[in-house]
Amino acid sequence: MKTVALGIDFGTLSARAVFVDAADGSVLASADAPYRHGVMSESLPSGESLPLEYALQLPDDYVDAMTRVVREARAALQSRVGDTVDIIGIGTDFTACTVFPVDEDGTPLVEKYPERRHAYAKLWKHHAAQDKADKINALAASRNEPFLARYGGKVSSEWTLPKIWEVLDEDPALFDEMDLWVEASDWIVWRLTGVYTRNASSAGYKGFFQDDLGYPSDSFLKALDPRLTGVFAKMGGPILPQGSAAGRLTEQMADTLGLPAGIPVAVGNIDAHVAFPAVGIGGPGEMLIIMGTSSCHIIVDEHLRIVSGMAGVVRYGVLPGFYAYEAGQASVGDMFQAFVDHFVPASYTKEAEARGLSIHQVLREKCQDQKPGQSGVLALDWWNGNRSVLVNAHLSGALLGLTLQTAPEDIYRALLEATAYGTRMIVDNYEAHGILVKRIVATGGIAAKDPLMMQIYADVLGREIRVASLAQGPAAGSAIFGTVAAGHCSIAEATGRMGHTAGTVYRPNEAERARYAELYQDYVWLHDVLGRERPDLPEKYRQLRGG
Amino acid sequence: MKTVALGIDFGTLSARAVFVDAADGSVLASADAPYRHGVMSESLPSGESLPLEYALQLPDDYVDAMTRVVREARAALQSRVGDTVDIIGIGTDFTACTVFPVDEDGTPLVEKYPERRHAYAKLWKHHAAQDKADKINALAASRNEPFLARYGGKVSSEWTLPKIWEVLDEDPALFDEMDLWVEASDWIVWRLTGVYTRNASSAGYKGFFQDDLGYPSDSFLKALDPRLTGVFAKMGGPILPQGSAAGRLTEQMADTLGLPAGIPVAVGNIDAHVAFPAVGIGGPGEMLIIMGTSSCHIIVDEHLRIVSGMAGVVRYGVLPGFYAYEAGQASVGDMFQAFVDHFVPASYTKEAEARGLSIHQVLREKCQDQKPGQSGVLALDWWNGNRSVLVNAHLSGALLGLTLQTAPEDIYRALLEATAYGTRMIVDNYEAHGILVKRIVATGGIAAKDPLMMQIYADVLGREIRVASLAQGPAAGSAIFGTVAAGHCSIAEATGRMGHTAGTVYRPNEAERARYAELYQDYVWLHDVLGRERPDLPEKYRQLRGG
Repeated sequence: MKTVALGIDFGTLSARAVFVDAADGSVLASADAPYRHGVMSESLPSGESLPLEYALQLPDDYVDAMTRVVREARAALQSRVGDTVDIIGIGTDFTACTVFPVDEDGTPLVEKYPERRHAYAKLWKHHAAQDKADKINALAASRNEPFLARYGGKVSSEWTLPKIWEVLDEDPALFDEMDLWVEASDWIVWRLTGVYTRNASSAGYKGFFQDDLGYPSDSFLKALDPRLTGVFAKMGGPILPQGSAAGRLTEQMADTLGLPAGIPVAVGNIDAHVAFPAVGIGGPGEMLIIMGTSSCHIIVDEHLRIVSGMAGVVRYGVLPGFYAYEAGQASVGDMFQAFVDHFVPASYTKEAEARGLSIHQVLREKCQDQKPGQSGVLALDWWNGNRSVLVNAHLSGALLGLTLQTAPEDIYRALLEATAYGTRMIVDNYEAHGILVKRIVATGGIAAKDPLMMQIYADVLGREIRVASLAQGPAAGSAIFGTVAAGHCSIAEATGRMGHTAGTVYRPNEAERARYAELYQDYVWLHDVLGRERPDLPEKYRQLRGG
Repeated sequence: MKTVALGIDFGTLSARAVFVDAADGSVLASADAPYRHGVMSESLPSGESLPLEYALQLPDDYVDAMTRVVREARAALQSRVGDTVDIIGIGTDFTACTVFPVDEDGTPLVEKYPERRHAYAKLWKHHAAQDKADKINALAASRNEPFLARYGGKVSSEWTLPKIWEVLDEDPALFDEMDLWVEASDWIVWRLTGVYTRNASSAGYKGFFQDDLGYPSDSFLKALDPRLTGVFAKMGGPILPQGSAAGRLTEQMADTLGLPAGIPVAVGNIDAHVAFPAVGIGGPGEMLIIMGTSSCHIIVDEHLRIVSGMAGVVRYGVLPGFYAYEAGQASVGDMFQAFVDHFVPASYTKEAEARGLSIHQVLREKCQDQKPGQSGVLALDWWNGNRSVLVNAHLSGALLGLTLQTAPEDIYRALLEATAYGTRMIVDNYEAHGILVKRIVATGGIAAKDPLMMQIYADVLGREIRVASLAQGPAAGSAIFGTVAAGHCSIAEATGRMGHTAGTVYRPNEAERARYAELYQDYVWLHDVLGRERPDLPEKYRQLRGG
């Protein structure tokens, strides 16, 4: 009899279910389905139009999509391995921070008030509360609130507090009526188990809760807006480590999904974080880099270490039993894109069109044979601020070495190198604080598509980098958490057995490694002069532009 | 009876003669004519092809063109004011450094050897001796030769020594046979007067002669190439201050030109330098900026002052009786052009085409309403090195303040501002050394065409800037020197009466001036950090690119 685990991933537009073999992590069956109402950015289902920067969803869509994908995947599993399967656990992951108001039973208020936009789920990319986030950041900075440094000096408009404050401001009656303001990741687990639990990851990274600090103080909230005093009571509930069991599948939900009742269900999770065990990392020593418009660097450790310049540390925030450290580079893919959008001449655009390549590919091709530093340009990669290790979102980027001969590909290459130097600074900083980084795994769109960049990273970091693809998305990672929640094994065992340990490996070339180690000292010097001695200068010019 | 002076300007492609009223400088008649053989870059008249980077001329063309333009202008003068004119003096100016070998009578060797390319006049822009200039610069730098700093740390392949060394290397028999290696500016005066004199300006700025240092030492020349020892003997001859009389028009040349014999003729001059009196500057206190691909800043003073970071000081180099100081900015028009060539996207190119504008005009239009610093970018304008005040040709440029929103026009504006800051640094440096800069006159292509840039300069420099156009080219300035050579008046009197004092005046706006005074401190800080504390860094990255 096959022993399997079920993972369910709730993405931005669709849900996906996968059944994986608990013995080796291989995917036995999968299905996915879009949400019926997708993302509502322009209007409500009634046709009423929405303000700018809105991104809403209907919680009922999550249950509906989940029902369809689980039933479909279950049928596929049956036709492949027959009836004799033991489904030992269920894990889920969700976009975050995606939040909405519910009553005491967990019923979304939007079922009662489909005409009120603040009753809907505010998707992670709902950005209409930016003014609220700006006020939180300004006040927290002026008061030196300790929580701010845990989040890279800047909280996001995507998180819980700005979003609930928006409700308070624009629909105070709804604010008063809600019993709880829930993360979708926790709500879906509540629906599955009948028990309301919160996961440490969402609570820590998006919900302003820090194990040692608690929530932002009432005195801070009062200064922000007196009506916010006590607002975190609306987000109460037991916070459990990742990998914990939240409860068991209820009879009613078992009927809905066509599964046996009583299967253990793990606490909720964030889609980015379940990638960690999914790529085969089960404990300390290995760092995961998720590379996209920005980059995120995750590593775990047994001990709480006060690491200066981190974007965040949350106890049990990624794996049970460990402190999870997150660092971030704010300017990666979107910096390359801004460069391509603003500073690449017509001749390159025409070449790309004629050859059916992207402009990025043309630029990479033109600089791929350069030796370290041969671009003649040294860059600081702070076009979108610095999230680690300077924790200063107000910095701006710099270029050095410009001549009459400097070509676009020279700057492009220097920007690639600068992001690698920035990563090395994060790695060095982890190690300086006692968190060893032995191996590196990279995932995300850029890692898969840019061998030039990955080789530069290997040479600059002086470490092997394995690029792991997550063909099934994060769902396979959630299945690992389902296995752990079932109590059959530890996270390390489950990851070792079920994690995806394949992938292209980039190894440092010794000559390039040694050369980059020298050039890195130039980056460190410029980084420290403009980031520590005179940060007022790059801050001032960002502000002058109104950025 | 009209008292007039004759100015003859020898440009790159043609000669121009103007007769001006000695009472007020107004132009009474003018004529111009191209050189018969123009510039020979591809082949000799025989059809023999030339190497790359060649630019040759035939000295006979100068006399031929002069004859035609003087006769034509004389006829026009006669039809305008009748026969009753007194031509009191003749002045000339020439491109420089334009040099060729002659025998002891001044007969160009090319008349005897029309098949030998090294017998031709090497025009200022003949760049085939770059390898020679590189060797001179490298050896002079390694030996700390005192002359090097007088020329901004880098001598040009356009000057006398690299060009004569090229003859020595490739046609040693011709080198041996030549009696003199003459500047065209001095040779034409020799033809007019029968007397060989040298002008202090060409000798100082192009001919390696410094009033206090003499020529580069024989020990230096010997180390460079033993055969060069004593080479400056081939350039001997009395060096006279600008504005001196070289002699009088000979009977023979008077016949040729259709003028009375015996008219006083001024010593030769450089076309750029005769602009100084031509725009109405006759003594200390006023600085001339000639703005083109690079900029040149000329001012005179009674005293020799050791001004650190100047591109050169030559006694009597511009006006008689004064030390002439020259500073330079290596990166102006060619930096803007390099930016436009390499970093402006297709959408801007299309807009320029559709609207019939240059890309420069489109960029200026997009940034013209920005307040000081509002580009959000701070630039160091060292794309082509720094000629003043750091005297370091190996530096490279920098940009600070880049964000995801930075647009091409933001960098373009920052580059405009950076060249203005660089000029302010030169002005401040002159003043710190006791040379007061009360007023500024600008001329040259960029000054005439770019009101935005001139207003930024006025605001940054906190001084009025008068943009003087030289519609008649430098010839009117030469006529002023002709008047002075005639002994009728001092240069100050002649300039005051005959100089062109009209032009658009840009006045500083007080708010912008004050704001730029603050922002200038940022430029100074970055300038000093990268130019004085860590020049090795911008030098290293230029070298890494191979620039």
